[in-house]
Amino acid sequence: MESIVGSSTEIKQRYFTGSSVYTQQSRCSLAERLNMNETNSQAQWITQQIMAEMAKSHPESASPSRAISDSAQPALMVPVGISNRHVHLSREDMDILFGYGSSLTRMKAVKQPGQFAAAETVTIKGPKKAIENVRILGPLRSETQVEISIADGFVLGVQAPIKMSGDLVGSSPIEIMGPKGSVTKDGGVIVAWRHIHIPCDMAAQYGLTDGQEVSVQTEGHRAGIMQRIAVRATQASVLEMHVDVEEANAYGLTNGSLVKVIG
Amino acid sequence: MESIVGSSTEIKQRYFTGSSVYTQQSRCSLAERLNMNETNSQAQWITQQIMAEMAKSHPESASPSRAISDSAQPALMVPVGISNRHVHLSREDMDILFGYGSSLTRMKAVKQPGQFAAAETVTIKGPKKAIENVRILGPLRSETQVEISIADGFVLGVQAPIKMSGDLVGSSPIEIMGPKGSVTKDGGVIVAWRHIHIPCDMAAQYGLTDGQEVSVQTEGHRAGIMQRIAVRATQASVLEMHVDVEEANAYGLTNGSLVKVIG
Repeated sequence: MESIVGSSTEIKQRYFTGSSVYTQQSRCSLAERLNMNETNSQAQWITQQIMAEMAKSHPESASPSRAISDSAQPALMVPVGISNRHVHLSREDMDILFGYGSSLTRMKAVKQPGQFAAAETVTIKGPKKAIENVRILGPLRSETQVEISIADGFVLGVQAPIKMSGDLVGSSPIEIMGPKGSVTKDGGVIVAWRHIHIPCDMAAQYGLTDGQEVSVQTEGHRAGIMQRIAVRATQASVLEMHVDVEEANAYGLTNGSLVKVIG
Repeated sequence: MESIVGSSTEIKQRYFTGSSVYTQQSRCSLAERLNMNETNSQAQWITQQIMAEMAKSHPESASPSRAISDSAQPALMVPVGISNRHVHLSREDMDILFGYGSSLTRMKAVKQPGQFAAAETVTIKGPKKAIENVRILGPLRSETQVEISIADGFVLGVQAPIKMSGDLVGSSPIEIMGPKGSVTKDGGVIVAWRHIHIPCDMAAQYGLTDGQEVSVQTEGHRAGIMQRIAVRATQASVLEMHVDVEEANAYGLTNGSLVKVIG
């Protein structure tokens, strides 16, 4: 069930690639970004809740009362991608850990375009313990970033903050060891904030904007409403919700599970 | 953050202690058990949701509209107890693992009356790997039961079902190793179904009955509505919600966190 998936595509990492034209294209248009009406969205969510409860209590009357819904659009269903712990490396740290001028070996593409799981792994070491065989995700980035679970933090002895990928303010220190050397980072360790990657046109269609938070409903023995999921809307995104292993297990999710956005 | 807490107090384990009077006393009365009105509870939850949304949109009008709530009672707040993986042993398996006639050493009381974390630990071994230093919770029970997380299941190579404590139908096989011997169990491994222990009088006061499922709201970066939490109402219970480490981490909970029952 555990798999390696890429973290969110970072606008500033795009700059780092040197392709500023691509960067401009990758952002959603202003019109797309202003599309969201949060109050309407909340009202719609409440309406859906009430409708569901009414349908349970009075199944016979559920169908006609659908007319009060302000949208004929089916709910947005998002496939789940589970992120195991992983590392993004900067050029400088790649040089130290794997040798000057070394490059990552593409092992497996992940769903977000351009990103891949590399054949290379590192050991990460905290004040308490080390964790070996931590996968590197490519391509290289402007800054090294280590993404772990909260349980990993207890193993390492590191209390990493829950942060969006790329936001390393207040992140925790770590030592990273590779076959050719090791680096001690003052920061860089985060627990990734759960998020949904969505292409701009689809975001606009569903009234979602980059940066807003949404909720999804999960089903089964561990049914729950996962709240505060960040929306990451870019032109090049592929629809996918990224959660870590603990979030997946606690909400009864596996890779490819479909979850319903409910507000 | 990880700690050892006891799993739910089992009626049939009470029988095993030989104290049938205590067993009779421990169950909630019929009146208490029939108190719950689920539809009212759901309606109340929806109302609370709408009130909260209205308060956000129109803070000035929030106060008067409280009158539509059908209950003046404050919400039920439940402290969280996080269960790490642990084992309950039968007399027979205790004899094999620790020697004939051996007894558990009380190391630390847990919140549910009569239960304790023992000084003794065992190794549990699945088809893939073993996990050492797994704590035993006392007292002894009629049947051996191993409670793990879903992540532990991946480590062991065991796909354990999510089950209420004591319900071992369809549970997974495991090998348990102690200092004096080992036993191979055909079943006994479960992932514990999350549950709230509550004394009967408090359950009645909040319209809850043993066996029903409720939801709680958690707050913070990993806010969510945890659904399908089983209510375990007995006379001797102490109010506490038992979740495993993954559930705690995914919902932003630590030991002693207070969660609000919302339906």
